[in-house]
Amino acid sequence: MSSAAGPDPSEAPEERHFLSTAEAAALERELLEDYRFGRQQLVELCGHASAVAVTKAFPLPALSRKQRTVLVVCGPEQNGAVGLVCARHLRVFCEKMDIPFLSYLPTEVQLINEAYGLVVDAVLGPGVEPGEVGGPCTRALATLKLLSIPLVSLDIPSGWDAETGSDSEDGLRPDVLVSLAAPKRCAGRFSGRHHFVAGRFVPDDVRRKFALRLPGYTGTDCVAAL
Amino acid sequence: MSSAAGPDPSEAPEERHFLSTAEAAALERELLEDYRFGRQQLVELCGHASAVAVTKAFPLPALSRKQRTVLVVCGPEQNGAVGLVCARHLRVFCEKMDIPFLSYLPTEVQLINEAYGLVVDAVLGPGVEPGEVGGPCTRALATLKLLSIPLVSLDIPSGWDAETGSDSEDGLRPDVLVSLAAPKRCAGRFSGRHHFVAGRFVPDDVRRKFALRLPGYTGTDCVAAL
Repeated sequence: MSSAAGPDPSEAPEERHFLSTAEAAALERELLEDYRFGRQQLVELCGHASAVAVTKAFPLPALSRKQRTVLVVCGPEQNGAVGLVCARHLRVFCEKMDIPFLSYLPTEVQLINEAYGLVVDAVLGPGVEPGEVGGPCTRALATLKLLSIPLVSLDIPSGWDAETGSDSEDGLRPDVLVSLAAPKRCAGRFSGRHHFVAGRFVPDDVRRKFALRLPGYTGTDCVAAL
Repeated sequence: MSSAAGPDPSEAPEERHFLSTAEAAALERELLEDYRFGRQQLVELCGHASAVAVTKAFPLPALSRKQRTVLVVCGPEQNGAVGLVCARHLRVFCEKMDIPFLSYLPTEVQLINEAYGLVVDAVLGPGVEPGEVGGPCTRALATLKLLSIPLVSLDIPSGWDAETGSDSEDGLRPDVLVSLAAPKRCAGRFSGRHHFVAGRFVPDDVRRKFALRLPGYTGTDCVAAL
């Protein structure tokens, strides 16, 4: 058994690491329609893998009690649903981990910096606009930008353009990025410490169809470091 | 962080390892209604954990190519759905693993013994009757009883009474049992090599409400050995 799929020289020139937004949408459609994944299943798989990625980037036994207090900021669409599942799994990975459920994001930056050890950004996914200026998502992004504690973004850093990564200078600067299914183009501009891909559930035929070169997964791991 | 929840002496006398069928149904209802799990989510969590349990009982690198060919026999209800998800995850854990999709179970016992290294029994769950004599489920059970290759049963060995474990003498004798959510009473009569519980997703409050004493899960593991 080979645990890592090495690049095949005969295919290498055509393969790539990143998907455009349209390709990412097509890949998801293929999983839903041809492979008959349920959306709930995909969200569960992505949320679980995101939680595993967080614990790989921040191994729980090494964290202080305060550092183990995680804030997961969830938006209104699928990225937010993945964030909720991620929070649930983080909660069970460590019974002492404290994940309060807040109906709004505090605007006091210092309060968040002091109360939490880590923030997970599950606000916006690829192709989702933050909405009107002054709405809950743009306000959440403005707060997240100012935080000094480590930030983990799910799929794309919220507010970045999924294609170009523009706004990446002024925007969020996550320490960890967890690409769901496959990295989106903007991930090429990610410069944080850890980049994980949570896409083990993508069938090999789909991976080949989209000419994706993804890292090998070890054993029964659901995430791999890029 | 404590990775294993040791028994609390003050609660120990009331705690137990097994659920009755009625209690198991009530626990599932609580997850669905109060905790708002989707059924798809539970099936995905249980199927994934079952696949992890199979690879713990039969570590893939140690298996020959033939041994890595797994037959998952899926019934018509939820246990069968978990089996399908289990098969999908087993497939991705090892790209060389071969999981053919058969619309019927071969009746030739010798053929199955020779073609497969392992059989997963996902035919019937707790409280599900095999149906009419001569129907597809009773025929599948009759075939499974005669196999000599290792057998892994999901939740309860198909055909066993979930409460009493009766028919356990004449019935299937799995080598591995994977209890989903929590062990059902009949698991007390299981005498195979490995018993895993795949119930990390059961919230602590639910575990306490049902006075369940379950093993501790390590790190981000989704299954634990009993």
